[in-house]
Amino acid sequence: MISKLALFADYYEFIMAYGYFKQNIHEKIVYFDVFYRANPDDASFSIFAGLEELILHIKNFSFSKEDIEYLRALASFDEDFLSYLSKLRFSGDLFAFKEGSISFANEPVLVLKAPLIEAQLLETFILAAINYQSLIATKASRIVRAAAPKSVIEYGARRAHGVEAAIKGARAAYIGGVKASSNTKACELYGIDTSGTMAHSWVLMFDDELQAFNAYAKLYKDNLILLIDTYDALNSGIMNAIKSFKAIKAKEKMKHFGVRLDSGNLCEDSIKIRKILDENDLKTCKIYVSGSLDEQAILCLEKNGAKIDAYGVGEKLITSASSPVFGAVYKLCALEDEKGFHPKMKLSLFKANLPHFKKVLRFYKGKRAIYDKLYIHDEKVEEQNYKELLIKIFEKGRLIYKLPSLEEIKIFCKNELESLGSEQRAINNPKAYELKLSKKLQILKEELSK
Amino acid sequence: MISKLALFADYYEFIMAYGYFKQNIHEKIVYFDVFYRANPDDASFSIFAGLEELILHIKNFSFSKEDIEYLRALASFDEDFLSYLSKLRFSGDLFAFKEGSISFANEPVLVLKAPLIEAQLLETFILAAINYQSLIATKASRIVRAAAPKSVIEYGARRAHGVEAAIKGARAAYIGGVKASSNTKACELYGIDTSGTMAHSWVLMFDDELQAFNAYAKLYKDNLILLIDTYDALNSGIMNAIKSFKAIKAKEKMKHFGVRLDSGNLCEDSIKIRKILDENDLKTCKIYVSGSLDEQAILCLEKNGAKIDAYGVGEKLITSASSPVFGAVYKLCALEDEKGFHPKMKLSLFKANLPHFKKVLRFYKGKRAIYDKLYIHDEKVEEQNYKELLIKIFEKGRLIYKLPSLEEIKIFCKNELESLGSEQRAINNPKAYELKLSKKLQILKEELSK
Repeated sequence: MISKLALFADYYEFIMAYGYFKQNIHEKIVYFDVFYRANPDDASFSIFAGLEELILHIKNFSFSKEDIEYLRALASFDEDFLSYLSKLRFSGDLFAFKEGSISFANEPVLVLKAPLIEAQLLETFILAAINYQSLIATKASRIVRAAAPKSVIEYGARRAHGVEAAIKGARAAYIGGVKASSNTKACELYGIDTSGTMAHSWVLMFDDELQAFNAYAKLYKDNLILLIDTYDALNSGIMNAIKSFKAIKAKEKMKHFGVRLDSGNLCEDSIKIRKILDENDLKTCKIYVSGSLDEQAILCLEKNGAKIDAYGVGEKLITSASSPVFGAVYKLCALEDEKGFHPKMKLSLFKANLPHFKKVLRFYKGKRAIYDKLYIHDEKVEEQNYKELLIKIFEKGRLIYKLPSLEEIKIFCKNELESLGSEQRAINNPKAYELKLSKKLQILKEELSK
Repeated sequence: MISKLALFADYYEFIMAYGYFKQNIHEKIVYFDVFYRANPDDASFSIFAGLEELILHIKNFSFSKEDIEYLRALASFDEDFLSYLSKLRFSGDLFAFKEGSISFANEPVLVLKAPLIEAQLLETFILAAINYQSLIATKASRIVRAAAPKSVIEYGARRAHGVEAAIKGARAAYIGGVKASSNTKACELYGIDTSGTMAHSWVLMFDDELQAFNAYAKLYKDNLILLIDTYDALNSGIMNAIKSFKAIKAKEKMKHFGVRLDSGNLCEDSIKIRKILDENDLKTCKIYVSGSLDEQAILCLEKNGAKIDAYGVGEKLITSASSPVFGAVYKLCALEDEKGFHPKMKLSLFKANLPHFKKVLRFYKGKRAIYDKLYIHDEKVEEQNYKELLIKIFEKGRLIYKLPSLEEIKIFCKNELESLGSEQRAINNPKAYELKLSKKLQILKEELSK
């Protein structure tokens, strides 16, 4: 995989950067907001993620000799500019929501204050990191809420948008609440619990299904999940699994055991299998299912009385298949110079942004979040009982934020969810959450619109 | 980004691998097919891509000391197994379609022949690489066909599923026919032409739009694309662009110049803008558009007479938003031992596979591909005029295939498309392509189904 990523920027960033350099405005201090206009899947909120990845990028941001060589070969830039780039490091301030935060449409989840050239060259990376991990954390949270209190395991590695998406996606899914992942590399990197059962190919490697189950049981009797649908789950698989379980039970106490279904009518079949297991005195045997599941499929299974103990969710989680684009954008909102601030906004219909360097406050009634409100950064706040959401991460290029562990982020995200009302957490037709603008910001917006 | 990837495997691969090792069947020679059951977007074919990435992985496949440490810490495997893994390299044969090939549902696009343990541990990586790049090459090909003969530029970096997906996706999109990419890192790595114009923030950095355009024009007069929708494309942007163009034209001959629209009603606005440009004696000024485009949006624009010269396509290409999962699977199809072949198949309803080590032939009438046909690997072929599609890439662990350049792959893909009839290349309601089974294979399948 690719390690040096300063060139990971849309080429127009270099075109702009060079233009600013030639205009000698490249070191003007600017503010860019990152926000999005709609939550995936028509939800009322998203989970903000990807911050750690972009912090590490910004911290190590620099152009290598090879990068400069490449830019030189494009023959569009002069040597002064290339020399300037080769010494460029991040020197600005970064403010962001904590990873795992609940976020709403149209509020800045990240604000970058930096010399114009730095802000421009970091845009693409910042958006790519936040867009993907927020997408998957948000999707995972939806799937986990649909399945709750049953567990969800992330199984998507093979269908992710490549190897890195699988790994970063497993991390984001963990933030969103999945219990474990099948992705061994992600588990190693992030300390996530591994999960895995049996492959169909295991069953095919033996002369018959019972022999395959018994061979497996010999090795994995403490965590014995048998995959029963290689041939015929109801007529062959479950019967052979029961034989295998009984052979062990006759000799010793069983710890954790179950069967997995990866095809067929998961609702009907799970009910039938539960009945068969119970009749065979295997009430503690769990039923795991997988196969093109997402939050809607799980809600449907649960509503129809499926007898399922845990869900393995793959492609529809790791690609957020029903809503595969997270649309965060990066917009200039202010310039700052010796004369002070110059708020900026783009006016295109449907694509406008809110001007000025802002702060985002979340107001609470007890522990319940009741609305978010945007203020101009130095505005006085009259109301009480709020939390300021944009945290300072970098100051003058120096990382001043202690990165939390993934486990801490996951717990933080869980607590964030509990601050919302159940009508906002609903998977379908959630209640909208209110985002307010301070009077000063509202007036500024109206003035600039003219 | 992450470099050592032998651990990039679903954890059940390790569970299986250890089980096979303990059963002492881990070195049995097996054959796995990679195939998929449906093309994205209800198409009649896909573009096979991702081969180079998996070749490089297989070539360098080995577990590092840290990998082994991690596996040891999981406390599920014995030292014999860990020691075995630490010495494991790929020793098998790999057969695959050439990258850029047209592929159809249910035919093997890749066959791995290897000791069981190697085949198992490579599954997840192989699928992740092929699934993503085939998805994007296929989508790009659709978008490029919808826009033809107008060019398509890949603009998706910020909305891809992370940084690596953006980079590998740009590569795959290039195979599928896009002309250039905005992704500077991908362009550097793969030798793709860079493309970029102006950002809205450039316009906002100046006191007015005309000043912004003139400053830009001074620097980039040989390739002058002005973004006209920061304030109001029809009432401000186009007028200022014309002033800027005319100021240059008065002094010198202009080479390549145009305007870009990134919002609004692209069809109506492009028609109006074309008219204004023509009336101002700027007939050679091009109109570029972008903004949530895909093949359907482009077909619609073209049908309605939009006056567009080239398309920038972002999120809906790089995520294949309308169909974001490519579903290739990896299925055991045969064992081979001193007694010969033992064909294998899984029988689950809807998830069956075709047994045995197979070859895939494409039959032609003149230059037109007319059907593909699967045979048992050593079957005699009576018919004439075919091409064998599975090429040997590795032999006994040794890479024997010369990797083509990306440019060669792109040209190969273009030629492949020309071998199909226009009714199969159609974006919507394409004609199905016939996949046949040899009589011997048909009989074997029926026998094993009993």
